[in-house]
Amino acid sequence: MTAQDLAQRYIACWNETDPARRRSLIAETWTQDASYVDPMMKSEGRNGIDAMIGGVQAKYPGFRFSLEGPVDAHNDCLRFGWALASPEGAVVAHGLDVGFIAADGRLSAITGFIEPQAQAA
Amino acid sequence: MTAQDLAQRYIACWNETDPARRRSLIAETWTQDASYVDPMMKSEGRNGIDAMIGGVQAKYPGFRFSLEGPVDAHNDCLRFGWALASPEGAVVAHGLDVGFIAADGRLSAITGFIEPQAQAA
Repeated sequence: MTAQDLAQRYIACWNETDPARRRSLIAETWTQDASYVDPMMKSEGRNGIDAMIGGVQAKYPGFRFSLEGPVDAHNDCLRFGWALASPEGAVVAHGLDVGFIAADGRLSAITGFIEPQAQAA
Repeated sequence: MTAQDLAQRYIACWNETDPARRRSLIAETWTQDASYVDPMMKSEGRNGIDAMIGGVQAKYPGFRFSLEGPVDAHNDCLRFGWALASPEGAVVAHGLDVGFIAADGRLSAITGFIEPQAQAA
């Protein structure tokens, strides 16, 4: 699996609202003891990551993440930009995620950063 | 020490060419077993980091790093951009470093990324 594929699968986890399919996708994407942290949330393990994503989906129904720009990878690291769009398609946030890849090709950790909001004109 | 201070001290390590002062600065900035990785280099421990930086300085005499843009930090993570300038002051590279901060406030790890070169006009 390329870093591009892994990043796309990671984004798919955030967008999958069917609980069984999301758990399955998380198991394919993350190691058992993976961890996630960003300025607003943190979680540990596949169950914790699943609960975190489910909580975001419940709070922001219909919102969707997408990859933004190229996926950049070296050694066991990758970085990629993302956008979050409302159900109407308006982009409401951009971020940068930095990930670490375990020996089995799954994500062992993601550290997320949120891009500053552009100033209103 | 703020994340801004830590990032500035990290950049100062790269620019310090006096061996004794550089070792001292590295000891103040990095944990004993810290690690560094970017697309071109990796090192482990203060001695390894010192040797890596000394090697870069020997290869590119007179070049200097500077922080670029704001330092963004949350939890035990920080990110910051940097520029590398030639002795004549021409910027020859930009990068993004992501760091992890140990309980004692020092850096435990840096993962560096290099920005793609802008297309020539």
